[in-house]
Amino acid sequence: MKKIAVFTSGGDSPGMNACVRAVVRTAIFKGLEVYGIYRGYEGMIDGDIKRLQSHSVSNIVQRGGTVLKSARSMEFKTPEGRKKAYDNLKAHGIEGLVAIGGDGTFTGAKIFFEEYGIPTIGCPGTIDNDLYGTDYTIGFDTAVNTALEAIDKIRDTAAAHDRIFFIEVMGRDAGFIAVESGIGGGAEFVMVPETKTDLNDVVKSLKNNRKNRFSSIVVVAEGDEAGNAQTVMEIVKNKVNDPTKDFKVTTLGHIQRGGNPTARDRVLASRCGMSAVEGLLAGHQFHMAGVVNQQVVFTPFVDCIGMNKPLIADHLKLMKILSI
Amino acid sequence: MKKIAVFTSGGDSPGMNACVRAVVRTAIFKGLEVYGIYRGYEGMIDGDIKRLQSHSVSNIVQRGGTVLKSARSMEFKTPEGRKKAYDNLKAHGIEGLVAIGGDGTFTGAKIFFEEYGIPTIGCPGTIDNDLYGTDYTIGFDTAVNTALEAIDKIRDTAAAHDRIFFIEVMGRDAGFIAVESGIGGGAEFVMVPETKTDLNDVVKSLKNNRKNRFSSIVVVAEGDEAGNAQTVMEIVKNKVNDPTKDFKVTTLGHIQRGGNPTARDRVLASRCGMSAVEGLLAGHQFHMAGVVNQQVVFTPFVDCIGMNKPLIADHLKLMKILSI
Amino acid sequence: MKKIAVFTSGGDSPGMNACVRAVVRTAIFKGLEVYGIYRGYEGMIDGDIKRLQSHSVSNIVQRGGTVLKSARSMEFKTPEGRKKAYDNLKAHGIEGLVAIGGDGTFTGAKIFFEEYGIPTIGCPGTIDNDLYGTDYTIGFDTAVNTALEAIDKIRDTAAAHDRIFFIEVMGRDAGFIAVESGIGGGAEFVMVPETKTDLNDVVKSLKNNRKNRFSSIVVVAEGDEAGNAQTVMEIVKNKVNDPTKDFKVTTLGHIQRGGNPTARDRVLASRCGMSAVEGLLAGHQFHMAGVVNQQVVFTPFVDCIGMNKPLIADHLKLMKILSI
Amino acid sequence: MKKIAVFTSGGDSPGMNACVRAVVRTAIFKGLEVYGIYRGYEGMIDGDIKRLQSHSVSNIVQRGGTVLKSARSMEFKTPEGRKKAYDNLKAHGIEGLVAIGGDGTFTGAKIFFEEYGIPTIGCPGTIDNDLYGTDYTIGFDTAVNTALEAIDKIRDTAAAHDRIFFIEVMGRDAGFIAVESGIGGGAEFVMVPETKTDLNDVVKSLKNNRKNRFSSIVVVAEGDEAGNAQTVMEIVKNKVNDPTKDFKVTTLGHIQRGGNPTARDRVLASRCGMSAVEGLLAGHQFHMAGVVNQQVVFTPFVDCIGMNKPLIADHLKLMKILSI
Repeated sequence: MKKIAVFTSGGDSPGMNACVRAVVRTAIFKGLEVYGIYRGYEGMIDGDIKRLQSHSVSNIVQRGGTVLKSARSMEFKTPEGRKKAYDNLKAHGIEGLVAIGGDGTFTGAKIFFEEYGIPTIGCPGTIDNDLYGTDYTIGFDTAVNTALEAIDKIRDTAAAHDRIFFIEVMGRDAGFIAVESGIGGGAEFVMVPETKTDLNDVVKSLKNNRKNRFSSIVVVAEGDEAGNAQTVMEIVKNKVNDPTKDFKVTTLGHIQRGGNPTARDRVLASRCGMSAVEGLLAGHQFHMAGVVNQQVVFTPFVDCIGMNKPLIADHLKLMKILSI
Repeated sequence: MKKIAVFTSGGDSPGMNACVRAVVRTAIFKGLEVYGIYRGYEGMIDGDIKRLQSHSVSNIVQRGGTVLKSARSMEFKTPEGRKKAYDNLKAHGIEGLVAIGGDGTFTGAKIFFEEYGIPTIGCPGTIDNDLYGTDYTIGFDTAVNTALEAIDKIRDTAAAHDRIFFIEVMGRDAGFIAVESGIGGGAEFVMVPETKTDLNDVVKSLKNNRKNRFSSIVVVAEGDEAGNAQTVMEIVKNKVNDPTKDFKVTTLGHIQRGGNPTARDRVLASRCGMSAVEGLLAGHQFHMAGVVNQQVVFTPFVDCIGMNKPLIADHLKLMKILSI
Repeated sequence: MKKIAVFTSGGDSPGMNACVRAVVRTAIFKGLEVYGIYRGYEGMIDGDIKRLQSHSVSNIVQRGGTVLKSARSMEFKTPEGRKKAYDNLKAHGIEGLVAIGGDGTFTGAKIFFEEYGIPTIGCPGTIDNDLYGTDYTIGFDTAVNTALEAIDKIRDTAAAHDRIFFIEVMGRDAGFIAVESGIGGGAEFVMVPETKTDLNDVVKSLKNNRKNRFSSIVVVAEGDEAGNAQTVMEIVKNKVNDPTKDFKVTTLGHIQRGGNPTARDRVLASRCGMSAVEGLLAGHQFHMAGVVNQQVVFTPFVDCIGMNKPLIADHLKLMKILSI
Repeated sequence: MKKIAVFTSGGDSPGMNACVRAVVRTAIFKGLEVYGIYRGYEGMIDGDIKRLQSHSVSNIVQRGGTVLKSARSMEFKTPEGRKKAYDNLKAHGIEGLVAIGGDGTFTGAKIFFEEYGIPTIGCPGTIDNDLYGTDYTIGFDTAVNTALEAIDKIRDTAAAHDRIFFIEVMGRDAGFIAVESGIGGGAEFVMVPETKTDLNDVVKSLKNNRKNRFSSIVVVAEGDEAGNAQTVMEIVKNKVNDPTKDFKVTTLGHIQRGGNPTARDRVLASRCGMSAVEGLLAGHQFHMAGVVNQQVVFTPFVDCIGMNKPLIADHLKLMKILSI
C-alpha cells in the first residue's frame, strides 16, 4: 500500500481534526502518500481530493468541526454514485481509506468495500457514543462537558429562584450524554431512551418540599420514549398542579456538537487515527479502530452498526442514589 | 445611618454576588451594621432578614446566581404587602436599603420610597443592559460572552457542513446582547428590536454563493419585531427556496443568565456595591449607582426606568461592514 | 455497620467534592449515619467531626477543592496521634471510614487499620494518576484539561512569534499529565520521568527549519530526569546556539490542582464514592475502590501504593509520530 | 487613497485578528485594495506583503494570536532598514498603513511617518492597557479574564489547605491587570507599580487569624517596586515567621497573552479596526484610534506613548475595602 485517503462524514464531532492529523502524520511516518477527501462521500464522487503534507494538519488538533468538511450524500446511496467515487479513487491511485464518522458513515463504507474491495478502516467520530466496538467515541467527552457546563450555569439561576428546569440534551437513540451530564450536573432525574421513566416518580419527588434543596434539574435525552423536554415538562407540570412552582425548559441543541475538543477526545482521536493507518498496513479491511479497556480493538463494521452498546449499570444506580 | 440592608430582586444576573459582597464589606468598613434580605421583596414581606458579617460573603465573588436568592413578588405590588415589608424593616431598625436588580426592582423601590421614605440606592443587576444611567449593567458582559462562546461552538459545526444557523439570544426590548455577540461572533446578520431588518436583505446575502464562506450565522434578539429565530428562519427559508441549503435554529435560553461572572462584571458589581453604600451615607435616597464614562453616577430611579438607552451607533455600522 | 465517616487528605484534587457527596448520599440511601471529618487526619486527631445530611452536600458536585478541607498531618505519623484519632472515632461510634486521597493518605489508612481495625475504603483522589488499581484517578482529567487549555493559549502566542516554549506540567514521579496534555496540545516533544529523553533529539528537531511550522512546544513533567523546564531549556538553548531563536519557559503550577471538575472526574468520583460505601457494607476493609476497564475493582492499599502503573505504550508511540 | 496595508507588531494580544479582519473588510467596503504585511516591521523590510480579500479573514475573529504574525525588528531601528521598508511599500503602491500594537509599534510608526510621510493609524493592541488615548487596549480584557480564571482555580486549592498564595500577573509598568484580576478574584492584597505597598500591612493582615477566612491571595504585578512574587513572598514569609503557615508562589506567565478573545476585546478590536480605515480616509496621519468614554478618539502617537494613564481611583479604594 502506497497511497491512502482520509475523510470525515456525517454529523461533525469535536476531535475529528485531531484524528485527521494523526492519520496524515502516521501515514507520512510510515512512508505513505496521503490524500484528504473533502465533504465525505460527496467529495469522493465529485473528485474533491487533495494531497496532504505534515504541515497541512498543523495547528488543527485543538479545533472543533472538521477541516475536511462533512456532508450527507444521497448520491452515494446509488450504485452510480459509488461507481463515480471508485473511479476517482482509482484515478488517484488510492489503495486504502480511513473513514471518520458514525454508523451512517460505516454503513456506506461497508457497502463500498463489498462492491469495490478498497480496504477501509473507520474511526468512531460521533458525539452520541452509540457505537459498539469502542468504550467512547470521538467527540462524546466534549459534548458531555459542554452539556455539563450549560447545566452548571442553569443551576445558578435555578438555585436563585427555586425553579424546576427540564434540560434537553442530544441522544436520539442513546442516553450516554444524558446520563453522564446528569450525574455530573447533580440532576434530580435523568430520562433516557434505554429505560422507561415513570413520570409519577418525577412528580412525587418534585412535590416533596425538601428543605435546603438548591434547585431541581431534570435532564432529558432528546429521544426519550416519554417525549422531548417540552412535552415531559408539560405533563409533569399538570400533574404537580402547583401554581407557585416555576417550570422552565431549555434545549441545548447544536452547541453540543462544537467547541474545542477535550484532552480525552484529542488523545482518543489521535490514537484511533494512528491505529487506523497501522490497521490498513496490517491488512484489516472493513473494521473500525476503537479503544476498549484501554486497548485498541478492530471490530468489523457490521458489528459496530448492529450490536447494542448498553449504558453502564452503575451509572443508572448512581442516578437513583445521588438525587436523594 | 447605623443599619442598612441589601437584597437582590427580579431575574438573577452574574455578578450579583460580587455586588452583595461589596455592599456588605463597605458597610462594615464604614462602621455600619448590615443585613441581608432573602428572596427580594418577598422576603422583606416575610421578614426573611439576617445579619451579615464580612465572612458571610467570603468565597462568593466568583459565583453566578445570588446567595440572597431572588423572587418576583405579587404581594409587594399591594399597599398591604408594602406595609408588612416596612414593618419588618422598622423592627430591625433598618434605615437604608441597597436594591440590586433591574427596572421592575427599581419601580418597586421608587414606590416604596415615596410611601415610607427609607432611602434606597439601586445597583443595576440585569443581563439585558437596558437601564439608563450606566454604560453597562451587572451581568451583561457575562451574558454576552456566554452567547459568544455558544456562537463559536456552532460556527465549528456550521463551517463543517456549510449550514445556515439562526441563533436566538436574550433581549426582549433591547438588542445589546445580540449586537455585541453578533459582532464578536462574526455573524452575517444581527436582528434587533431597535432597528427594522428587511428580511429580503438577509435572503439576498444568503443566496449570494460567496466563495470561501465558512459559515452563515444570523443572530436574532428574542424581541425582534420580525419574530423569534424560528419564525424568521422559516420566512427566510421560504424566500431562499433552495433545497440544498440547510437551515438550523438554536435558542440559547437560560444558559445566558448563569455562570461565573467575567472580570468586567465582578469589578463593575464591586464598584456599584461600594458606591451604593457611599451614596446612602452621602444622602442619596432614590437613585441608582451606575458607571458612566468610567465615573460613578447617581441617577434617579425615574430616569433609569423611563429614559431610553440607545445602541452604540458604531456597532450598528460594524454589523453592516463586517459581514461583507 | 451503622455509622461511617468520610474525609479528604493530602493534596486536593478536582472531584473530591463530588466524591464526598456520593459517599454521603449513598450512606443515607443505605440507612447509615454519616459524618464528615474536617482537615483529614489532623481533624480526626482534633475531633473536628460533624454529622452530614443529604443537603449538606447540595450544590458542591461542580466545585473544585474540598469542602471537608485537607491538611498534611505530622501528628498522625506518631502512635500518640493515631490513638487520639481512634478515641475520637470511637466516641462518635464510627465503625467505617472512607478516605479520599493519594498514596500518603492510603499509607496512613493502612497503618491505622492494622492498629485499630476500623474498616477503611479509599477513593483515588489525586491529579497525578499514579495509583495502581484504577485506570484514572479523580482529578486527573481536570488537571490534564487545565494544562491543555494553557498549552492552547501559549500556542497562539508561540505561533505569532515563531517561538519555542518549554512548558512544565505537574508530575513528580509520573508522566501521565505530560503525555496526555502533550499529545492533546500537539507538542513537538514530551519529557517524562518514565523514559529517558536524549536532549540531542530535541535539539535536532528544533534546528530543523521545518517549513510552515506554526510553533514549537516542549512539555516537561516536573519530575523529568533531565531537570525541570528551566534547566532543560537552558541546555537545549546552548546546544541549538542560534541567537535568532527565541526560547521561553512557562511553569503551569498550582492552577492544575483547581477548577471545576470535568464530567469524567465528577462521574468517576461519584462512582468511587458510591462503591466505597457499598464496599464497606460488603465487608472490604483496607481497599481502594477504583475503576478498571469500566468495572469497579477493590484493590488492597498495599498494592495501590506499591505497584507500578505504567504509561500507555500507544501514547508513547503517538508522541513520536505526531510531532513529525 | 487606493491601497492600504495592515500589520501587527510587538507582543501579540488576543483580538489582533478581529482587528485585522475589521481593517480588511472596512477597506474593501470603502473600495480600497488592502494588503497584509507579515511579521510587522520585519516583513515590511523583507517585502513579505500579500493582497488580502474578504475571505482571507474569514473564521479568525475568534482566534488568539495574529495571523499576520509578529516580530520585533532591530533593523527597522536603522535608517537603512526603514528605507528598505519604504521602498517595498512604494513598490506595492501602498499609500496608508494601519499598525496594530503597543508603544514600541507606535514609536516606530511615528519615526517612519516623520521620515517618509505615509499616513499611519494605530490600533491599541497590547494586553497591558498602558496606552493613553483609549480606555482599554485590545487584549486587556482577555488577559484579565485569563488571570482571573487562574486565580479562581488557585482559590479552590488555597481554601482547601488554608494556604497563602502570591500570584504574579503581567504588568511591567502598569498595574491594570493586577488591579482588575485582584478585585475580581477577591484578593487580600494587590501590589502594583503605581503605588507603594508597605509589606508590613500585608504581614499584619496575614498574621491576623481571621475566623472563617477561606484563603489568602496576594496578587503581584510583575513590575511592582517591591519585587516579583517570589521575592515579596520570601520577605513576607520571614516577617510572618510562622512555620504553620504555608506560602506558595505561582507566576501565570505567557498564558495571559493567548486564548480566544473575549466579547469586549473582539468588539473593541473591530471598532478600532473600522475606525482606523475611516481615519485614514478622513485625513488622520499619525494617530491612534482608541475608544474613550464610548466614543472613537484619534490621539497623536506622541501622546499615546508619552502621556500617563492612571489607574481608576475607585479601584484602588475597592482593593482596600473588599479585603476586610
